[in-house]
Amino acid sequence: MNVLVINAGSSSLKYQLYDMTTENVLAKGRVERIGMDSSILTHEVDRQPEVREVSEILDHTTAIKKVLDMLTHRKFGVLGSIQDIKAVGHRVVHGGESFSESVLIDQSVKLEIRKLFDLAPLHNPAHMMGISAVEDNLPDVPQAVVFDTAFHQTMPPSSYLYAIPTVLYRKHKIRRYGFHGTSYDYVSKRSAEFLGRSLSELKLVICHIGNGASCAAILNGKSFDTSMGMTPLEGLMMGTRSGDLDPAIVPFTINKEDLTLNEANSMLNKHSGLLAISGISSDMREVVEAMNEGNANAKLAFEMYAYRIRKYIGAYAAAMNGLDAIVFTAGVGENSDVLRKEVCKGLTFLGIRLEEARNAIRSSESRRITTDDSQVSVLVVPTNEELLIARDTYRLVIEQPEAASISQ
Amino acid sequence: MNVLVINAGSSSLKYQLYDMTTENVLAKGRVERIGMDSSILTHEVDRQPEVREVSEILDHTTAIKKVLDMLTHRKFGVLGSIQDIKAVGHRVVHGGESFSESVLIDQSVKLEIRKLFDLAPLHNPAHMMGISAVEDNLPDVPQAVVFDTAFHQTMPPSSYLYAIPTVLYRKHKIRRYGFHGTSYDYVSKRSAEFLGRSLSELKLVICHIGNGASCAAILNGKSFDTSMGMTPLEGLMMGTRSGDLDPAIVPFTINKEDLTLNEANSMLNKHSGLLAISGISSDMREVVEAMNEGNANAKLAFEMYAYRIRKYIGAYAAAMNGLDAIVFTAGVGENSDVLRKEVCKGLTFLGIRLEEARNAIRSSESRRITTDDSQVSVLVVPTNEELLIARDTYRLVIEQPEAASISQ
Repeated sequence: MNVLVINAGSSSLKYQLYDMTTENVLAKGRVERIGMDSSILTHEVDRQPEVREVSEILDHTTAIKKVLDMLTHRKFGVLGSIQDIKAVGHRVVHGGESFSESVLIDQSVKLEIRKLFDLAPLHNPAHMMGISAVEDNLPDVPQAVVFDTAFHQTMPPSSYLYAIPTVLYRKHKIRRYGFHGTSYDYVSKRSAEFLGRSLSELKLVICHIGNGASCAAILNGKSFDTSMGMTPLEGLMMGTRSGDLDPAIVPFTINKEDLTLNEANSMLNKHSGLLAISGISSDMREVVEAMNEGNANAKLAFEMYAYRIRKYIGAYAAAMNGLDAIVFTAGVGENSDVLRKEVCKGLTFLGIRLEEARNAIRSSESRRITTDDSQVSVLVVPTNEELLIARDTYRLVIEQPEAASISQ
Repeated sequence: MNVLVINAGSSSLKYQLYDMTTENVLAKGRVERIGMDSSILTHEVDRQPEVREVSEILDHTTAIKKVLDMLTHRKFGVLGSIQDIKAVGHRVVHGGESFSESVLIDQSVKLEIRKLFDLAPLHNPAHMMGISAVEDNLPDVPQAVVFDTAFHQTMPPSSYLYAIPTVLYRKHKIRRYGFHGTSYDYVSKRSAEFLGRSLSELKLVICHIGNGASCAAILNGKSFDTSMGMTPLEGLMMGTRSGDLDPAIVPFTINKEDLTLNEANSMLNKHSGLLAISGISSDMREVVEAMNEGNANAKLAFEMYAYRIRKYIGAYAAAMNGLDAIVFTAGVGENSDVLRKEVCKGLTFLGIRLEEARNAIRSSESRRITTDDSQVSVLVVPTNEELLIARDTYRLVIEQPEAASISQ
């Protein structure tokens, strides 16, 4: 059974087609510049060169049509017919408090996602366009949604509430939601497998370090706390996001620089983080390169970035009263051995002994980078959010075939 | 030699008169409602009943005059003449990056404090009124200023910089300053004495928990990191302050509730924290009382409050790669055994073993509340910011008698 996974942005759309019998990716790709001149579809099938097609794609419905055409293309395709797609799974950033797990889409689910536009104005409307576009093209195929926030709905109130007037929670649902939940879900399960232990007895701190970055305390398999908050701005320093700062800086800066609220948001989300401090790039690879060439600002940015991760690891160890393993995942976490080393060098008090040779290995496999006698293990576990979306979608369709068949 | 310590607010003024030969407090008191109808002066001399005097005190100069009158009062006073006051020390909240230690006041110091009005608009102008008021009344007496921020000027850039565009640091000096520095300075020295170890070899996390609350990582006697930031809003949950939150909540709330910037600041500084979550009080004693009577909101507020302290302790242990002692100080920290217990109960992974009987003791003496074999000691060390201000002032006047004599 084939499941198509869609991650729709406002002007882009990524896809992966899974054969769920084998969990193999049959094809994947992306459409960029939707709604602009010369949109680009990039399509990739295992072991074959990437195909690029430039055309005018004015909306998401056309984008999905182009993707389906490509998947069934006589030369580049992998399907005989679009009938071979049995389910579609969508990544949705914000599920608010309404969704604590993945669900099949029906009218009420769509209504709920719309209600959450306020909390994720940049993401949820784009996801809805993706859902509608699939409906337009594949009206009879069941669709599921997998939320970035759902995994964190197990957090206790002392983790998710802010110490602000409670009317703001009641009226506007201002609270910590956390993101990267699909990744935490996947990686926590993989980590337990790797350690050969039951997830229900583990204390994990997972560091999902990509261009967006967050940490989570996973206690007995459930999210206990996480660094991103109501929005993905809070927590760690990121590629272009500030992460934590004195909240008083926001009105202070708005006043001093005469900013609009949108400009303030844009400054903190798009012009801060690694980019702002290094003055070079939001990409950790380029920052590390500049640091190695002696650039002092790049070095400072790198140190700040690692220091904040280290503090969150300590905070979450305290939150869970100890920890069994620290897990690095996502682009930077999986690939930057220098960052992992910098983070862990200040954690020997927890009984962590990094093994340099293991840390230096580049691999797409899960691995341990501490010595065998390290009291706390540090792992690198590649994340795979698309696979988890495919699995959840598959499970929902198999479990609830009736619901799926009437879901449209 | 007598030193008068002044803590001037916008409509209030506290004072303590020290005999520096013995470090005894000869008298202390406060003036409230300056500039309003029926101002109140409350004056206290050791072992005598408090004296209250209600009169019209329209400005700080008059307030200081009233204090001096009281100190030399034939019945309630302790001095033969105001000539017996040899130096005056002021608490000043914000010293920015200009002051990394206490200094004698001269024209350039006053100019610098004025330059910092922007960073501490509620505090520094009031302190300047206090300084001028003393000048008006005691023109020939040297004055010193002791800054709440100065002790934290040892923080490295990776602790004090925010990951926001660096122009905001260069242009507006937006960075972490930290506060309660006088308390951290005093308490770290006392803690080392108590432990019988050199401060220069200790890793301390000090929790200054009063109505305002912060934590600091004190590495080898120097502030390495602290939870308050550019302003005292950041960090721990406090009596009425929110502490840490997703910075995106600020513009979101301003927009949703149509707030002015001042209203947003006021909400986060005066209507948040314990008060907001408990719905009862900003006073920990009242919150604990309500919790013990079964109030669920009070319990939640208490747990959130303790949880955030616990996370900072873990974060700072990671920042210093371990710790020797956790120290509780200030009103709540010194007096709330239930809070200390709640914080420490999740820290056994650090080797902390609280001894309930020791924790329950009420005393104004420094004490250890862990078992003798606890790997990390937890101490309660009463703070004394006024004494440190008196000591610094005394030292400066003794060390630099010439500077002192021309300081006006």
